[in-house]
This record gives sequence, C-alpha cells and structure tokens, in this order.
Amino acid sequence: MVDSPEVPATALTIPSRPLRTLSNDQVESIHEASLRILEETGILVQSECGLDLLARAGAEVDRSTQWVRLPRELVLKAISLAPQRFTLYARNPARNVEIGGDQLVLAPVGGPVMVSDRDYGRRSGTYVDQVNFIKLAQQARVLDMPYRCVEAMDRHPNTRDLDYLYAAIRYSDKPLAVMSLNAQAARDCLAMAAIVFGGPEAMAGRSVILGGVNVDSPLRFSETTVEHLFAFAEAGQPISVTPFAMPGVMSPASLGGALAQQNAEALAGIVLVQLIRPGAPVVYGSFSTVADMRTTAPVFGTAEGMLMEIAAGQLAERYRLPRRGLGMVTTTHFVDAQAGWEKMNCLWTLAMSNTHLLIHAAGWLDSGMTASYEQFAIDLEMLASFERFLKGFDVDDVPLAVEDVAKSGPTGSYLLSERTLSAYREIARISPLVDSRSFDAWSAEGAPTLYNRANPLWKKWLVEYEDPGLDPAIDDALRAYMASRGVPPAE
Amino acid sequence: MVDSPEVPATALTIPSRPLRTLSNDQVESIHEASLRILEETGILVQSECGLDLLARAGAEVDRSTQWVRLPRELVLKAISLAPQRFTLYARNPARNVEIGGDQLVLAPVGGPVMVSDRDYGRRSGTYVDQVNFIKLAQQARVLDMPYRCVEAMDRHPNTRDLDYLYAAIRYSDKPLAVMSLNAQAARDCLAMAAIVFGGPEAMAGRSVILGGVNVDSPLRFSETTVEHLFAFAEAGQPISVTPFAMPGVMSPASLGGALAQQNAEALAGIVLVQLIRPGAPVVYGSFSTVADMRTTAPVFGTAEGMLMEIAAGQLAERYRLPRRGLGMVTTTHFVDAQAGWEKMNCLWTLAMSNTHLLIHAAGWLDSGMTASYEQFAIDLEMLASFERFLKGFDVDDVPLAVEDVAKSGPTGSYLLSERTLSAYREIARISPLVDSRSFDAWSAEGAPTLYNRANPLWKKWLVEYEDPGLDPAIDDALRAYMASRGVPPAE
Repeated sequence: MVDSPEVPATALTIPSRPLRTLSNDQVESIHEASLRILEETGILVQSECGLDLLARAGAEVDRSTQWVRLPRELVLKAISLAPQRFTLYARNPARNVEIGGDQLVLAPVGGPVMVSDRDYGRRSGTYVDQVNFIKLAQQARVLDMPYRCVEAMDRHPNTRDLDYLYAAIRYSDKPLAVMSLNAQAARDCLAMAAIVFGGPEAMAGRSVILGGVNVDSPLRFSETTVEHLFAFAEAGQPISVTPFAMPGVMSPASLGGALAQQNAEALAGIVLVQLIRPGAPVVYGSFSTVADMRTTAPVFGTAEGMLMEIAAGQLAERYRLPRRGLGMVTTTHFVDAQAGWEKMNCLWTLAMSNTHLLIHAAGWLDSGMTASYEQFAIDLEMLASFERFLKGFDVDDVPLAVEDVAKSGPTGSYLLSERTLSAYREIARISPLVDSRSFDAWSAEGAPTLYNRANPLWKKWLVEYEDPGLDPAIDDALRAYMASRGVPPAE
Repeated sequence: MVDSPEVPATALTIPSRPLRTLSNDQVESIHEASLRILEETGILVQSECGLDLLARAGAEVDRSTQWVRLPRELVLKAISLAPQRFTLYARNPARNVEIGGDQLVLAPVGGPVMVSDRDYGRRSGTYVDQVNFIKLAQQARVLDMPYRCVEAMDRHPNTRDLDYLYAAIRYSDKPLAVMSLNAQAARDCLAMAAIVFGGPEAMAGRSVILGGVNVDSPLRFSETTVEHLFAFAEAGQPISVTPFAMPGVMSPASLGGALAQQNAEALAGIVLVQLIRPGAPVVYGSFSTVADMRTTAPVFGTAEGMLMEIAAGQLAERYRLPRRGLGMVTTTHFVDAQAGWEKMNCLWTLAMSNTHLLIHAAGWLDSGMTASYEQFAIDLEMLASFERFLKGFDVDDVPLAVEDVAKSGPTGSYLLSERTLSAYREIARISPLVDSRSFDAWSAEGAPTLYNRANPLWKKWLVEYEDPGLDPAIDDALRAYMASRGVPPAE
C-alpha cells in the first residue's frame, strides 16, 4: 500500500546471517579437499597467457595437456590478497553499493534467450525487451542494478554485449554489471565504462563495472574465461567466478564432494585474478544445483542446492571473500505455485546465509531459459516484502497502545479510532498484488491468479519509468565508440 | 525420488532457532505492557464459574460488567506453573510427539467449510472429505497428526465434533487434536479419548488429546471458551490459547501494541488453565495477521505478520511455554504463485523462530475458508523438502570424492561413474511434483502447472493409505458412546 518498489534503491541490509550447515571442522575438511584437488588433479587452462602466468607463479604446468597443478602455498597466498569487500560505483553516486559487507546486492536475471508475458506468450527476446527490463530495474527500488535479463536475439551476437551495456548506461544510473559473450566484447565493455567514468586511469582506482565468468565444470578454464579474467583484472575491475558443479554430473556424486570441487574451481579463478593484479576485487560465486537424474536436467531451489549454497557461504566467509549466491531461481516453466515455493526458498536461504550479491533476483523462470515480465513483478514484490521484514519494528509506541486499550476496554473497537485512522497506512505494507476480497467477489471478476494480477503491475511501472538522463557528451562518445567497433545503433 | 512422505512420521527437528526480532529489553517492554493491560484494563469473562475462580484467586472481579482485572503477581505465579513441554501420546506409541522441545509438530488445516479439488472445483465440505484428509494425514510422513481440515457440512452441527474425533481415531493412529464447537462437545471428545486411553484416571496422567480455544480479541473470554478451558484442564489435557488480534482492527494500530494485547490475551487464558489445574499442559498460541485496510480482511504471510510471530516466539520463550505458531497460511484464493510465496515465507519464519506446534501446515487456501486437496499435496512436498534441508549433510565422503576427481581429471565426466550410478538416488530428493523436462516437452503434454501435477499425487497417496486398524472393543465402545449422545453413525 505504501512503500512500493518504485522509489530509489538501497540494498537489503542484513546484519545477522545465522544460517550455517557445516561445523568449522567440516569447513576445514572441504577446504583441505579443495586444496588437494588443485594440487593433485589440477585444472585445465586453455590459454597460453594463463599458462605462462601460472608457470611464472610456481604452478606445475604441463604444456601438452594444458593441465596445471596449483601448490597450496600459491593458492593460499593468492587468495589472501583479494579484498574482503569493495564499493561498486554508479554514475549516480547515490546508487553506489558495497559488495562484501552487510548488504545483499540484488540484480535481475541474466541469460534467458526467451521472454514471456501474459499478452504475447513466450517468444525470442528482443532489444526492446532488454530495454524494458533495464527501465524496470532502474525504477525498482529493491533492485540495485540492471542486468542482462534477456538476450536481444534481434541483434548480432558479436554486438549484443555493447548494445546491452549502452542501454544499461543510457536508461539507468545504477551500477553496471555485464556478462559478455567473448573477450573482445569484454574489453569493449571496459572501454565503454571508461568513457562514463573518466578514462581508464580514473577507472582503475575504483570498481565501476562488474564482470562475471563461469567455470566449465569440472575444472576447465576456457580461453574465453581466462581472457575475461585478464581483461577485468588488468582494468582493476571486479569479476565474479562461478562454477556450476552439479553433483554426479559435472562433479562427484555427493554434496560434500561437489562442494569441494566447486570451491576448488572458484579458488582457482580467484588465484588467476590475483596473479594478474594482486588485490584486484573479485567475487566468490556459487550456483549450487542438483540434477534430476531421470532427465539429468538441473533442478533449482531444492533442499540440497540450498545446503550447498549455505556451505559455499561459509567457505567464502573463511576466505574473507565477497560472495555471489545462486539467485531466486526455479525449475518451473510457468508462473505457478512452484515459482513462489522455490524462489522464497532461495531468498530465505541466501539472505540468511553469507551472501553479498544475488544475480537472478527477478524475472527468472523455466530453469533460466525464460525471462518473464509477470514473474519479474512478483519477484520485486517478494523482495519488497522481505525488505520490510528485515527492517523489523520498534516498540516505542507500546505505552501509547496500552492507553488505547485502557480507553477501549475489553471488546472495544479499534477500526475507527483516531490512532488507527492516522496510522493504518503504516501498520502494514500490503502488496498491490494481494487480493483480499472474498472468494465470490474475486470469482465475479474472473478469478485472476497472481500471474494475471502481475500483468498490469509491470506495465504500470514501465509507464512510471523516469529517465535519469545521460550527459550528451558521454552519450555521443559511447555511440562513437560503438560505431568504431562496427555496432550499428539499435534505435 | 526417494524418501517420499508416505512412511511413518517424526516431527521436524530444529535444534537451532536463530530468528529474533526484538532485543531482550524490547521483549521486557512488551511483557510489561501486557501486564499493565491485564492489571489496568483487564479481560471480559462471560462465565460465572470463570469469574468465581478468578475472584477466589485474588483478581478484581466486577460481577455486573464481567470485567476482571488481574494483578501481576497472580499472572506471574500462575504462568510459572505451566510445564515447558509435554508429550502428546498417540494410541500408537511410535506416533507420540513432544510439544515444547526442539521439534516442530505439524498438523494440517482446521476450520474451512469449503473444500476444493481440480476435478470438482470448490464446494461444501463433507464427512467423506474429512475422512479423506484424515487418511492423507495418517499416510503423510511429515504430518504428526490429523486435524479437522474441512467441516463435514453434511452432518449435524451438534454432532460434527464427535464425528470428526471418531474418524480421527478410526482412520489414524497419530495423536488427537480437536477444535470443538461447544463445551458439551468438548466434554464428549474428552470422554471418547478416555475410552481409547484406558479411562479418565489413566488419561489424566498424560496428554492424549489436544484442545484449542481462540480468544475473542480484544480481551473477551466467552462462556464457550472458558468452558473449554475448564473441560480440558480438569481432564488434565493440553489446550492451546490463541488470540487473533489484528492491529488496528481488534487491537491497537501498531505491531508492538497488537503484540502486547495478544500476549496479554494468551497469558490470561493460560492463567485460567493454571487456576483450574495447576501444572496442566497448555500451549501459548499466536495467529498474527494484519488487515488489508481497504477491505479490513486479514492478509496472511505478510512481513508484518511474520515479525509479530517471531516476537510471539520470543515471548513464549521468556515464559518457558510451548508455542503454537500461525501456520502455512495464504490469502490467495487459488493454488497459484502467491500460495507458494506466502506459505514458504510462513514456514521459514516459523521453523526458524521459537515455534513448537504448527496447525494449518497443509491444505490451507483462500484465507482459511477452503481446504484444497492439491494445495495439501503441495504443502506436504514443501514440508518434505524442508525436512530434507534441516537434516543437512555430512562430509565423510569427501576424501573419496577427491579420489574420484583425481581419477576423472579436469573435464572428466561423472554421469556414468560407478559411484554416481550407485549413489544418485541419495544425492537429492527430487519431488514427484517437479517437472524438469524442457519447455517444449512440457508444453507438448498440455503445460501442466504445479496445481495440475498435484492432482494425481494426493489421489495416489489416498490409494496407498494403510488402515492402522482399531481394536473392535474400542470401536464398539466409541460407537456406543456416540449413540448415547444421539450421534447417528456416519456410515
């Protein structure tokens, strides 16, 4: 009713993160197992410059197989150089966020190639959809930054990264985060960020654009992955390293075993970053899921995935590294009860364990294959409600309430009391998605489910979008840079 | 996949309950405010024997208004006599549960007069529906006891309580819990329980049937409520006392103020029980909801309701009383994304705060007006998944996993490894409700939502129901008792 998610953002503040699933000894045994994996089995590094760097640092490099074994001293020393937290600066300083403190920084989904809404169903994503989601993320108070949301399948693959970043800069003044498809695009994104933030030197001193790589589990760092790490670390920009080690598929068939491998993979990526640029900001990522062995497809928001996520948070805490958690993810293909179930399971687990960054916090549907406008709106309302929850309440007004009770007496009424009439808007934030009418009244209006009710909400937010504006000189410079890279303007 | 909820029950074990929303000082200030409400404003007691009892105990009783002011010494002394925990015995000792320890005891919904399923839609509940739900609760591993679920609207109101209890005894060997419509029915239920548990004397020494009353907030104890308290306390049987103090409607217009009144109401009921029979088991109940002030209807699973529930748990902890929490409740009229969202919000909050008994843990829909078969199945799967989560995992197999990694090497495959093939059923419990196929495969089969997929699941469980049997002598005695009370057999 009040406090709707349209007003400016601040990250969720979570002073206490009580969830633990491993004892300290168990954390140590996962840590030891990860070191053994890196030392005895090692990683595959499909990059000559990556191999050179690791060899110079004292790793045991086999040039013919590209296998690299990492001595534990090398690993421990490198990861100790990574900062525990960093500020991600936005072009509007009021939008800066800290990653690694007591905030949970939220970004919407990235990755889907399909988009869906109630009006036109499920279809290929377009640049217009991408811009819509950027505007929605800009407008949403509970989201700290826009993210890729859906691929612009109507744009050329080689230029999509630049298209996205341009749109994110143009339509939002929140921090920038990219997922680039190739290393050249990553470098282009960094160059564009430099245009916004006063040039490469000015940019190197602070984090202004967050990159991300996935490790190709098990234990493979592709040429693209390593080049991304080089590009971001050399530019002094933060990057997250996120394995995807489903137990029994891409890692050993146990939660603890998968966790040991996942931890080894994240650490190896972080080692690479620290060897490239000691002290560069980096994010420890996890994306813990289990497979449905009937289909070998990943299943999201399960008990086992959540247990691994909590444990990953404990490991990141042990290394004093900022952590990215799984996201508000779900296996379901439709905005149904399973979406609410699995997403709330993720939100509670991740918010209450050691997590600092949550990508895929809005819009994710269909195992990450589809970005849904209705689910996006619902996720924002879930987050707004959770944010209200985290704020708690004070009891300063309790003595006044005791007087109210004395005045009303037993069986008294409060509905029309002076204090109720002045305070009722503050008692509770009722989501505009909630329909508290009777069943009959609801039926008479066509029995709209939450999915149906979410449809006008995201459209309302889109209509209410406020353009933060962009300095025309920066806009021109960005367009000129994109033109120089052969990217035709999208509009 | 494995570990489906059909096998025998044990309550969820939750050793750590980390959620707190009030400081100790704030808990004290709510406590103080509640004592002031009881001392200065007092309660309405619409029962002569209740007034007699309170007057004898030293309360300030106004016979003309039936207002009773409770001195704080009286309150504090009485509540200190209530036990911190008790065992609720079942006719099958393997089904006994403890209320007040580190278990969260779960029962399905109670109260709805409507029932719904996908096949026949929403309609009046019948005795057949009630029996179906008792059988499902008996069969469900995660439910600790059956509960009323839906009213048998095809039975006479005066006899419904006996009908329900007979069916619960006949079709389930789990503990008994009743919600009776009038005081005579409460006494009849206690008499029937005595038949099952060896007579009134044998029964008085242990808890075998759990009763419950609601306080008519604000601060009213009706004749029926007080008679219930007398009946259960005199029989030495446990009873829960649950206010329903929506802020700004039945209590002051602030969360803290509503909480102070709610706490005063629960304490007053517990005082009555302890005056009737010192040391009788009793449950501190809360049912914290806020109103949508546009309709004044209650809204369930909100941030504010959850904050009040956590605080209520802290108060019960302060008094060392077993606590009943709100339930897995939702405002939504249909099994949609809102149901998953609000129910998971409730489950996480209540399981992670000080809660020992959760009624309305399965089947609740439509603000408690409807019991849904499909929602019942979904709730059981949510609970089974949460139970799996609570079990955590061990890391003993991690050294073996490190060897697996060494054997597979970087980029190795685990899918067909010996250990995966032998262990994959144990890696994860994938709910039979989860559909991990591709969107296209799912669409080709008619795009079934979770609601649709839940329909065959509860039917399967009903088919698999195993009759625990009942001693024919007890059965005859129960039927004879019911006949003596003018209750015609239901079948």
